[in-house]
Amino acid sequence: MAKLKGNCIVAQSGGPTTVINSSLCGVAQEARKHACITGVYAALNGILGVLREEIFDLGKEKPSTIAGLRRTPAAAAGSCRYKLRTLEDNREDYERILQVFEAHDIRYFFYAGGNDSMDTADKLSQLAAEGGYELRVMGVPKTIDNDLACTDHCPGFGSVAKFIATMSMEAGRDTEALYTTDTCTVLETMGRNAGWIAAAGGCAQRDPEDAPHLVYVPEVPFDMNQFVTDVKTVLKKYKRCFITASEGIQDKDGNYIAEIGGGFAKDSFGHQQLGGVAETLREIVENKVGVKCRSNKLGTCQRNAMHFASKTDGDEAYRVGATAVKEAVKGTTGKMVTLVRTSNKPYKCTTGLADLMDVANGERKIPRDWMNKEGNHITKKMRDYITPLMAGEVKIAVGKDGLPVFARFKKSFLKKKCSTWDKA
Amino acid sequence: MAKLKGNCIVAQSGGPTTVINSSLCGVAQEARKHACITGVYAALNGILGVLREEIFDLGKEKPSTIAGLRRTPAAAAGSCRYKLRTLEDNREDYERILQVFEAHDIRYFFYAGGNDSMDTADKLSQLAAEGGYELRVMGVPKTIDNDLACTDHCPGFGSVAKFIATMSMEAGRDTEALYTTDTCTVLETMGRNAGWIAAAGGCAQRDPEDAPHLVYVPEVPFDMNQFVTDVKTVLKKYKRCFITASEGIQDKDGNYIAEIGGGFAKDSFGHQQLGGVAETLREIVENKVGVKCRSNKLGTCQRNAMHFASKTDGDEAYRVGATAVKEAVKGTTGKMVTLVRTSNKPYKCTTGLADLMDVANGERKIPRDWMNKEGNHITKKMRDYITPLMAGEVKIAVGKDGLPVFARFKKSFLKKKCSTWDKA
Repeated sequence: MAKLKGNCIVAQSGGPTTVINSSLCGVAQEARKHACITGVYAALNGILGVLREEIFDLGKEKPSTIAGLRRTPAAAAGSCRYKLRTLEDNREDYERILQVFEAHDIRYFFYAGGNDSMDTADKLSQLAAEGGYELRVMGVPKTIDNDLACTDHCPGFGSVAKFIATMSMEAGRDTEALYTTDTCTVLETMGRNAGWIAAAGGCAQRDPEDAPHLVYVPEVPFDMNQFVTDVKTVLKKYKRCFITASEGIQDKDGNYIAEIGGGFAKDSFGHQQLGGVAETLREIVENKVGVKCRSNKLGTCQRNAMHFASKTDGDEAYRVGATAVKEAVKGTTGKMVTLVRTSNKPYKCTTGLADLMDVANGERKIPRDWMNKEGNHITKKMRDYITPLMAGEVKIAVGKDGLPVFARFKKSFLKKKCSTWDKA
Repeated sequence: MAKLKGNCIVAQSGGPTTVINSSLCGVAQEARKHACITGVYAALNGILGVLREEIFDLGKEKPSTIAGLRRTPAAAAGSCRYKLRTLEDNREDYERILQVFEAHDIRYFFYAGGNDSMDTADKLSQLAAEGGYELRVMGVPKTIDNDLACTDHCPGFGSVAKFIATMSMEAGRDTEALYTTDTCTVLETMGRNAGWIAAAGGCAQRDPEDAPHLVYVPEVPFDMNQFVTDVKTVLKKYKRCFITASEGIQDKDGNYIAEIGGGFAKDSFGHQQLGGVAETLREIVENKVGVKCRSNKLGTCQRNAMHFASKTDGDEAYRVGATAVKEAVKGTTGKMVTLVRTSNKPYKCTTGLADLMDVANGERKIPRDWMNKEGNHITKKMRDYITPLMAGEVKIAVGKDGLPVFARFKKSFLKKKCSTWDKA
C-alpha cells in the first residue's frame, strides 16, 4: 500500500492523568520518524480545538519540551469534556471537524481518551470514509478509572494505583500512631462506576494489621449496617480502622452513598459529579460507631502524581502512543491500541488492536471474585493483577527549589482557514 | 561534671509528621554511643505510655528497624493528644510520671512534640528538681505547622511544604488542562492558626500563570467579597484559577470560614477541629463567580508523605534528636533543641537551645510582609525562607510491588513495676 501523505494531529480528552502526556510524546516522537507524516500538530483542548480550529504545531516546540512530556502530568495540549452527540443529532459538528482536517491536510488523527472519545473517533472515521476523505483514525487508551473494554488495563491506572496505595500506607501509619484518639480514617478515591482505584488502595495491605483494613467499591452493593459491623470488627482486632472507598459506592438499589452527605452536580456528559463519600462515611463512623474519624479526599491530586508515577505505566503510555502512529502509517484505521498481558510473573505486556466501537460500547468492571466474599477487601486475583502495573518510578526533574520541573508548550498556532465556530 | 548514669526514654506527641521518626532514630542511635545511657526505651503513645507504664525497649529492636525509621512516616512509637493540666490542677499525673521513671531508673527524657509537649516536659523538669530526682529533660521540636517559637523552623515543616507545593503544581496542571469546564480548584491545607503550610503551596508558582494563583492564610483576615473579586481577576487573566487555602482562615472578627460550610468538633486539647474550607470556598466560587470548582483535601496524607520527603527536613529532624542526647549527656536539661539558620544562600543551619517555657508560651505566625499587600499570595521573603527547607529527597525503600517499605517496631515491653493507672 502506498503510504498516506499528510499532516497528523493529536488530541487529549477527558480527565487528565499522570501519563497522558507520555502518550502524546510517543505520538510526536514516532510521527517524526515517518516521512509520510509531514507536520505534527496538536489540538488545543481535545476535539474542541479542532472544532474551533485552535491547532498548534508540535514541530515548533523544542525537542526538550517534547521529551519533558514524559515527566509532566495532566494534559499539556489541554483537555475537554465536550461530548459530540450522535451522528444523526449532530452531523454538523462531525462535518466541521472533517472540514478543518481537510483545510490543514490532516490525514492522521490520534485521540487519547476514554470510551466517549473512542466513540467520537469512530464516527469521524465512518464519516470520512463515507465522504471519500482518506483519514486514518487511531484511538490511544487513557483513563485512570481502568474501565475500558478490550484492553488488559489502561495507561493512567498504574500511576493512580501506585499513588493511592502509597497514600493508604502513609496515612495508614498516621491512624496507627494516633489510634488512642483519631481512631478511624477514610480515604476517598475517584471511580464513578468502577472500583479499580479504590481496589488499588487495597494493595497497600501487606500484613493484616496494615491499612487499609476495609475497601469498598461500586461493584459490590454497600450496606450501611454491614459497614458499621465491619468497622467494629476491625476496631476490636486492631484498635484502629483505615477505610479506602470509591466515590461511586452505591446501595443495592443503586443510590450513591455520597448522596447522603450532600452536594451533587452533573458534568456536561450527564454523569453525576460525586464527591462526598469520605465525609459521609466519616459521619456514619462517628455517629454509629462512636469513635473519631478523619476524612481525606485527594481529588485531582491523585490523577497527576507525577512525582511518584509508575514507570511501567509511563512506559506503556508512551508505547501505545508510538504504536498508534506505526499502525496508522501501515494503514490501520478505526482501531484503538490495546495492552495485552502475555505473562504475569514475570510481567510481560505487548500491544494489540480493538475496534473503536467495541471500546466505545464496553465497560470493564471488577469481577466479583476479585473482591472477597464479604465485599470489603480485595483478593489475591486483584493484587496479582494490579501489582505489576505499579512497578518502578518515573525519574522526574527536580529544581533547585526541591520541586518538580514540568514541561509546558509555547503553542505556535496555525493560521485559521475555516469560518468561525463558537457553539461551545 | 560526673556523667549521669541511667536509662533514657523517648516519646512522640501530637500530630504525626513525615520525619518525627527521624528524630526518634537520632535519639536512639546517639544514645547508644554513650556508656552512661544504659537502656534506650520508648513510651507507647507519648506521655500516655509513661502514665500507663507501657514502655518498650528499643535495644530489643533490630538495628535495621531503627535505621528504617528515617524512611518511615507518622510516629513509630505511637503518639497521643493527651494534655496534662497545670501542676496545681493535676499534680498526681506529674508525680505518677516521675514514679514510673524512678521505677525504671529513667534519667533522661526526650520528648518530641509541639508547644503543649514542651509545657509538659518543663513541668516534669521542675517537679523532678523539687523532689530531688535527678532527671535530664530535653525537648525535640516537631510540628508540621511550623509555629513553634525560638526556632527558625520546625522539623516536619520542610516535608509538608514540599508535598503541598508539589500537589499544587500537579493538581494545578489538571486545572490548566481542563479550564474549559473545571475552571477553578481549591486545595485545602492543614494549619489551624498559622498559615505556613498554605504559604508553602505558594512556592509552586514559579511563573505568574502557574498554580496557585491565590493563597490564603489565617494571619490575613479573609473577606468574602474580596475573594470573589480576586478569583474573577485571575480568571480574566488566565481563564483558570487555582487556590491554596489554610483550613484555619478567618474573617476579620475571627470567625472560621470553614464554619460556613458546616461540621465542627473540638479535640481533647480544646482546639477546634477544622476541615471544610475547600468545600466552603468551592461553594462560594460556584455560587458567586458562577464557574465549576473542584475541592481537594489532602488531610492526614500531607503530613506523612515520606515518598517525596525533603532530605533537608529529614536530616535536620535526625540532627535535633541526636543533639538532644548529646546535650543531655553534657548536663543540659529543661531546654528544647532549636534550628538556627546561619546563612540562606547557601543554606546553612546549626542547632541552638531554648528554654522549654519560652517555647511552650510562644507561637510564631507569618509576618505580615511575608504575604503580599492584597493578602492573597506570598512575597519573596516567604519564598526565600521556605525554599531551602524543601531541598533534596529522602531515599526511601521501595518493594517489588512498587510501594514504599516502612519500618515497624516489634515492641518488647518492660515488665510493669508500678500500680495500674487508667485515667485516660
